[in-house]
Amino acid sequence: MTSSRILKVEVCFSPSLYPYKLVRKNFIAVVVDILRASTSICAALDNGVKRIIPVGGVDIAKEYKKKGYLVACERDGKILDFADLGNSPSDFLHTSFQNETIVYSTTNGTRAIQLTSDADEIAIGSFVNLSSLSAWLIKQNKNVVILCAGWKNLFNLEDSIFAGALAEKLLNDQIFTTVCDSVIASLDLWSMAHHDLAFYLGKSAHRNRLKHLVKEEDYRYTVTPDSTHVVPLFRKDAITDVFS
Amino acid sequence: MTSSRILKVEVCFSPSLYPYKLVRKNFIAVVVDILRASTSICAALDNGVKRIIPVGGVDIAKEYKKKGYLVACERDGKILDFADLGNSPSDFLHTSFQNETIVYSTTNGTRAIQLTSDADEIAIGSFVNLSSLSAWLIKQNKNVVILCAGWKNLFNLEDSIFAGALAEKLLNDQIFTTVCDSVIASLDLWSMAHHDLAFYLGKSAHRNRLKHLVKEEDYRYTVTPDSTHVVPLFRKDAITDVFS
Repeated sequence: MTSSRILKVEVCFSPSLYPYKLVRKNFIAVVVDILRASTSICAALDNGVKRIIPVGGVDIAKEYKKKGYLVACERDGKILDFADLGNSPSDFLHTSFQNETIVYSTTNGTRAIQLTSDADEIAIGSFVNLSSLSAWLIKQNKNVVILCAGWKNLFNLEDSIFAGALAEKLLNDQIFTTVCDSVIASLDLWSMAHHDLAFYLGKSAHRNRLKHLVKEEDYRYTVTPDSTHVVPLFRKDAITDVFS
Repeated sequence: MTSSRILKVEVCFSPSLYPYKLVRKNFIAVVVDILRASTSICAALDNGVKRIIPVGGVDIAKEYKKKGYLVACERDGKILDFADLGNSPSDFLHTSFQNETIVYSTTNGTRAIQLTSDADEIAIGSFVNLSSLSAWLIKQNKNVVILCAGWKNLFNLEDSIFAGALAEKLLNDQIFTTVCDSVIASLDLWSMAHHDLAFYLGKSAHRNRLKHLVKEEDYRYTVTPDSTHVVPLFRKDAITDVFS
């Protein structure tokens, strides 16, 4: 590491580790919930959606529905009766949503976004926007904290491996460094996974838990890097693509 | 996985993840603080110490000293003036402590032990007792939760890799299984590290942080598996070797 590496990359493997992070200021938080909120959000913005309002509980989603919003809300793999569509990437890929605002219900994702309110910016990361996100991050001249949304506050493989993929891109740039063991671990896990991501993530407990709920089309989309060029940012109360 | 695998192995990468663990009953907690409490505790019991009373803060250690106990207490690599010895493995390897009781001051280790009070037994794990601990665990017919003490509540490499080493031993036995992504990750990290553990852990942030504080002798001892046959258990207020 040379002294020109002045910006830090840090990884939090779970929301419950976020309060203990070392980077405290001048940073962008990248919220990661690969299965599925962060992947679906990229899919939606890539397919014309203008604004995404992330909400936690079903009750809040219902409130928005009453106000006339389009609402994406499913539980246990089923679209709830009041909602317009589900939470999977494919729910956003086959219909045109040009300039629409969509309310997206995600428990893990919303909590992670709320947690990162101390960040200068909150970005959304997934394999489908890996390169566009890393290129944008490199231009911002800020530290980066990658927050894995996890599953019920626990470590999960898919978010952690994405953290390694993103950290690798950043550390390949001469301006970033790390003092964080979780970055080293995520890089090593990514190095084992990246030759066949779909196969590796087949080991994931969350994937196995969701297997009957995640369509093959969605899974393939989720593990294929760089099919979009979006950089979703959460500002005020909504997520928009920085380029739109 | 066959149906004969009825016991679970789970890994918590940090004390702050422990409240969210999936295994809730009929389990043994293995507390891991490789640099250095759990390694030093094994060294001490292996060299004749009868009982180790783990305490957190320096103030409590001083109280015990006033009562006449032998006290191991260092901060920033220096033995505190009231204490009898430091916290490194080598503090216990070159003097005979036959049948002694020692008060051992460890912030991370003590907090981890306190946290696991919901376990049926609390064992102490390190590379130096890897095989004896795993052999004993396999005989207990209980689930196993491996708790990495971490560093200031953060993930660290050395504890997580040990978790992988221990999980591998348990999963090689036909009675254990896992539904936990952190077990899969720790197994994969261990598979990358085990060919040259000393080298791999040289990448660790904690090791780099401690480099000027950890003597080469201590480091070599720490990363050499199975130099002892102890199984330290915390019961009531003290740690003793189950075999002594």
